[in-house]
Amino acid sequence: MYKVAFIGAGNVAWHLAPALEKEQIILVTEVYSRTKKNARRLTRLLYEAKAITSLDFSESEAEIFILAIPDDAFSEVILKLQLPENSLIVHTSGTKSMAVLERFERHGVFYPLQTFSRAKKVDFQKIPFCLEALDSEDLDILVELADTLTQNIFHITSREREKLHVSAVFACNFTNHLMAIASDILQQHDLDFELIKPLIQETMSKVLTHEPHQVQTGPAIRKDQRTIERHLELLENHPEFHQIYRIMTESIQDFKV
Amino acid sequence: MYKVAFIGAGNVAWHLAPALEKEQIILVTEVYSRTKKNARRLTRLLYEAKAITSLDFSESEAEIFILAIPDDAFSEVILKLQLPENSLIVHTSGTKSMAVLERFERHGVFYPLQTFSRAKKVDFQKIPFCLEALDSEDLDILVELADTLTQNIFHITSREREKLHVSAVFACNFTNHLMAIASDILQQHDLDFELIKPLIQETMSKVLTHEPHQVQTGPAIRKDQRTIERHLELLENHPEFHQIYRIMTESIQDFKV
Repeated sequence: MYKVAFIGAGNVAWHLAPALEKEQIILVTEVYSRTKKNARRLTRLLYEAKAITSLDFSESEAEIFILAIPDDAFSEVILKLQLPENSLIVHTSGTKSMAVLERFERHGVFYPLQTFSRAKKVDFQKIPFCLEALDSEDLDILVELADTLTQNIFHITSREREKLHVSAVFACNFTNHLMAIASDILQQHDLDFELIKPLIQETMSKVLTHEPHQVQTGPAIRKDQRTIERHLELLENHPEFHQIYRIMTESIQDFKV
Repeated sequence: MYKVAFIGAGNVAWHLAPALEKEQIILVTEVYSRTKKNARRLTRLLYEAKAITSLDFSESEAEIFILAIPDDAFSEVILKLQLPENSLIVHTSGTKSMAVLERFERHGVFYPLQTFSRAKKVDFQKIPFCLEALDSEDLDILVELADTLTQNIFHITSREREKLHVSAVFACNFTNHLMAIASDILQQHDLDFELIKPLIQETMSKVLTHEPHQVQTGPAIRKDQRTIERHLELLENHPEFHQIYRIMTESIQDFKV
């Protein structure tokens, strides 16, 4: 059983710390957060972890440190952080390179590729873990931890993780925004977003079981110029939606694999 | 029981004709297709429908005609079509206005808002039907038909249906294309699309249970300029993906409801 400290008590730590303790692969020694209240909310779910607000871990018994903080807090936290000799530190970010931890000799990445909400139960079995470590023995430790939660374990370098993140921005963040636009267009005409939900579900179910470009449908791929022009006309009062419609249509028509 | 002829033997007719016959609300008299082979493939699933290749229905016993053909075949088919006196004709298109059928006195729209694939079983209970008719008694007939298949029945005018279709292009066709881009970026770096599927599923499950703009995540909404610039840098060799990234990011940041 590894003694582990969590630095950060946000959504990732909230789900990850209790899950790993439950598998009896770790025992959490400390949870750091900027406020004691935040840290305590998480330690209440753990066996014997202490809630702390200092980044000086030099006296900690932990041998592994899991950094689960917002991307924009990295530089400040890493600067202040004091770890015991010879400990391993990993971060859980999809965007940060492993090298941001190079101040510490043994370091790596322990990145669960999923968005977490505090209120929603997480099924770790379905979550791919992207692991990376400077040292191969440390990578083995990370595999040992992740392996208690999931069979989806991938050794992903920082450069690959960066590409993974760009593609997730397209597939998830931008997709979500297209739904926001669709919902907005419907609302402006007193139509219910519910109406197109079955169609969205079917689109998603197709995309998850086929190569996406092979199941492309709609006026753009059909080169149905009449419908495209009519749609652009309907969007004339929304220059941004108009521009997105035009550029996505062109991109669909020009797409080559 | 209404006597009904299907004009077109594509995916919509393929699912709709047997489903309505099974509910014993209609009896299909004829199935028209350009080739006898196509029409026969569908009539084999029906009680006593004849496969035909002529658009002259003047001697048909059918009282309702369901036009389920590709959008680009409309003008030619409508021009040639001969119907018996006093029959009702409806089309099943999401894009065509009801008025394209104005050559015929009694006309309307019977539009199941879903994409159909021949091989995939359809659960009509989940599909919204968008109905429209020139005459209110004809609308009642369409409601009577749709009511045997689903409780999601909506009276949608041609103008509304047009808006519905634009929004579906954003929410489904463009979304699919973003997935194609994501998959392409991953493939170029020998990463598996499987990796981000759990994240896509979670994104979709959130979007279907919340207002999409309220669950927007990612570097754009966080105004994480460093990540955005790094991503744009990574996309420099793909001018189209670069442009889409930039415009979607701006649109997320400017989005107001």
